[in-house]
Amino acid sequence: MAQQDRAIRTRQTLLSAAAKVFEERGYQSATISEILTTAGVTKGALYFHFPSKEHLAEGVLQEQGQQLPIPDRASKIQQLVDTVMVYAYRLQTDPMVQAGVRLTLDQQAHGLDRTAPFTQWGEIIQTLLDKAQSQGELLPHVVPAETAEVLVGSFAGVQAMSQALRDHQDLLFRASALLRHVLPSVVLSSVLTSVDLSESRGAKVFTELQALEAEQAPPTSAG
Amino acid sequence: MAQQDRAIRTRQTLLSAAAKVFEERGYQSATISEILTTAGVTKGALYFHFPSKEHLAEGVLQEQGQQLPIPDRASKIQQLVDTVMVYAYRLQTDPMVQAGVRLTLDQQAHGLDRTAPFTQWGEIIQTLLDKAQSQGELLPHVVPAETAEVLVGSFAGVQAMSQALRDHQDLLFRASALLRHVLPSVVLSSVLTSVDLSESRGAKVFTELQALEAEQAPPTSAG
Repeated sequence: MAQQDRAIRTRQTLLSAAAKVFEERGYQSATISEILTTAGVTKGALYFHFPSKEHLAEGVLQEQGQQLPIPDRASKIQQLVDTVMVYAYRLQTDPMVQAGVRLTLDQQAHGLDRTAPFTQWGEIIQTLLDKAQSQGELLPHVVPAETAEVLVGSFAGVQAMSQALRDHQDLLFRASALLRHVLPSVVLSSVLTSVDLSESRGAKVFTELQALEAEQAPPTSAG
Repeated sequence: MAQQDRAIRTRQTLLSAAAKVFEERGYQSATISEILTTAGVTKGALYFHFPSKEHLAEGVLQEQGQQLPIPDRASKIQQLVDTVMVYAYRLQTDPMVQAGVRLTLDQQAHGLDRTAPFTQWGEIIQTLLDKAQSQGELLPHVVPAETAEVLVGSFAGVQAMSQALRDHQDLLFRASALLRHVLPSVVLSSVLTSVDLSESRGAKVFTELQALEAEQAPPTSAG
């Protein structure tokens, strides 16, 4: 394995370990030495990649924001729905995404900038709404920046409620219900009737993304 | 002061101290002894009212749910809006409400039942939607239980986003924006045009409630 590959893998190991420890302990109680033990790497390797606990947390926050790119859709509203539903699907299954959301909502994480995930998601959603608006999918009164903030904030709470009540098991239903409640006040009904808002949408698009990824990946030398 | 009054006052002092310490430290890091010092009461008094940290947290959660009763409105949708906007207003200003919301969203609060606030708020909102439905204010397809859960979950996130980005300073705007985005898909437009959804609604109704309370209170012996 080339040195660069090894560095990338070590970084990933550290982020996974950090995600696990932050998820279990919360930001404030988590210690570098526990992350080190969980990761099973040298102290030198850790400090090379992440000079502090804050850097580790920022790394986790960035990872969860790294979304698989949603394929372009003719309807930007469908693309927005796909973005939200795939994120909900990943939140049910991916420890890195879970840890990222938990850090974002951790009021006890003093010293950690928790604004970035809200801001980044706000920008992603607003960009899609801007495009939807310019191709005539939105109702005339809609202000994309405001709607984006409502959607991002609402999703954060809907997932928190799902986590507290059902350990995220009903998250896809709740995310779909949120979109069914907000989009009719934003999107032309003639557009919305053709949009798939169902709770199975997340898994469906996630499978599509994995197939696309498999096509694009170079053949591995192993096997 | 009668013995019973003194007990009520001590209980309130303890809850205020607990709210302060939970808000600063989070549930897990907060200690009974810190709450004791902050409250300035005897250990015996504390254990008489609250045998454990969990009981203190549950007390705080119950307090924040104690809403000033919103006066009956002809439109149950206006009453729902008033309930949400007064809560947002209190969340900006009342440390007990702030601590309650924080505990509800504290994933680190192991051993604490964080479902109650979601469930209680769900029931309050659903009751209002049921009444709105029976007097013909809602669109035909609406399922009050589902809409109530969307509203409660969304509000939890909108306040978390407002807290993270602006320390709750823009909460009234965000709460009003949430209602403006959700209610058009739930309420008949002929009803909604007469409902005050503005961000100033919370302060307005809060003032109304205080006036009502002053009228109803017996004259104090002091002064």
